[in-house]
Amino acid sequence: MAPEPSDEFVQSFARGLAVIRAFDADHPRMTLSEVAERTGLTRAAARRFLLTLVTMGYLTGDGRAFQLTPQVLELGYSYLSGLSFPELAQPHLEALSRELGESTSASVLDGADIVYVARVPTRRIMNVTITIGTRFPAHATSMGRVLLAHLPATRLDAYLANLHAEHRTDRTVTDPIALRRVLDEVRQQGWALVDEELEVGLRSIAAPVHSRDDTVIAAVNVASSASAASAERLREEFLPALLGAAERIDRSIRVGSVSG
Amino acid sequence: MAPEPSDEFVQSFARGLAVIRAFDADHPRMTLSEVAERTGLTRAAARRFLLTLVTMGYLTGDGRAFQLTPQVLELGYSYLSGLSFPELAQPHLEALSRELGESTSASVLDGADIVYVARVPTRRIMNVTITIGTRFPAHATSMGRVLLAHLPATRLDAYLANLHAEHRTDRTVTDPIALRRVLDEVRQQGWALVDEELEVGLRSIAAPVHSRDDTVIAAVNVASSASAASAERLREEFLPALLGAAERIDRSIRVGSVSG
Repeated sequence: MAPEPSDEFVQSFARGLAVIRAFDADHPRMTLSEVAERTGLTRAAARRFLLTLVTMGYLTGDGRAFQLTPQVLELGYSYLSGLSFPELAQPHLEALSRELGESTSASVLDGADIVYVARVPTRRIMNVTITIGTRFPAHATSMGRVLLAHLPATRLDAYLANLHAEHRTDRTVTDPIALRRVLDEVRQQGWALVDEELEVGLRSIAAPVHSRDDTVIAAVNVASSASAASAERLREEFLPALLGAAERIDRSIRVGSVSG
Repeated sequence: MAPEPSDEFVQSFARGLAVIRAFDADHPRMTLSEVAERTGLTRAAARRFLLTLVTMGYLTGDGRAFQLTPQVLELGYSYLSGLSFPELAQPHLEALSRELGESTSASVLDGADIVYVARVPTRRIMNVTITIGTRFPAHATSMGRVLLAHLPATRLDAYLANLHAEHRTDRTVTDPIALRRVLDEVRQQGWALVDEELEVGLRSIAAPVHSRDDTVIAAVNVASSASAASAERLREEFLPALLGAAERIDRSIRVGSVSG
């Protein structure tokens, strides 16, 4: 993403955020030169941003390498704390995960992606590395299809008109016309099953979560390895438990006061 | 925190981060005027930062009010994804929570605070509102005492010398000399019990987690309402289960490759 600079655009703020994002699982500690290289900033500019982050407590440095501090979590949690939904959903996701012995998650739509806002992993060794904040393209995921299926018609049209859907596996539906048909079916049946379209060996089934005014605000799912659960088992065993959990989450939202 | 501006300090970056942090559970949606007021920026400056955040996809606005998008989670997760520890600990925290029927957590030390990096809440209605990123003063928490007790001597001396410990309840130990004695005991016994020192009605017990080179990198705990579990029950029933979980986490860290 390269936003258009304008008088209204604070370039140095955007560059500073890029410095934070340059740190990740593969680059948890970086030298000044590495940060400059990964962000495309000059060493002098990178140095100023790094020192600003150190002064503000978001970064620590030992003279050679820098790493983010837990204070950076505050930024992400400015968002999460504004949502009461994940907190209300978490106990129901826990119970569902215990009942089925599989990982459960909740996500919201952000553009053409889903973003995880709650997650209960399983104890398996073969586990998917998904944390809160993980993004996947909506078209290839069960939660994404539930969320897309319930978009207002004009937003769905715009999504499909701009679709550059990635072929994640041989099975991924990427054609806008075929995807619209799939989404119509999801809307009618009230749930979505995705069978090895995001990744080979991975199946999941998702259902919608509603706000008090009955808008779909999030989706919840159960995911399993294809070897552990057939598509039939997802429909016959997982689906009733999932729909029960979604209904209980809807009920806590109606009782509680939930914005989004 | 008011960092000293200098030639090396990028003021506009710091101000932009303050705009993100101005959004929270009590202010999930704000108008331009509200953002200006909460950040102390002029309306013109606040407007530039808000539009920059909109352009970068971190904020959405409907013309009147602004709210953060899930993309903000990326910033916090730049930090979390660099830690392999929470991912390794999570299944053990899940199992411990199931075994005891109580919430479990993991945290790291950041200055004088602990910061939650993993958490398994219970299904209870009377639940503590703690999410990943939540901070508490280390001196009044069981995990904080475990982490402080294992600081290098010079860092512990500096912590105690600068201690401005808040009286969270009548029981909170706030005197540096008394706290040092408590920490010596925690170091010797290998765990910490905090009995209504953080909040009336709340008890918790914590144990350390070690890196491969045997440094204490995090703490894990079990927390319970004082009415549900006596201090004796924490020591006799919760402690053996907690120490078992901490040992299993240590073992996964020795087997896996963990930095921090």
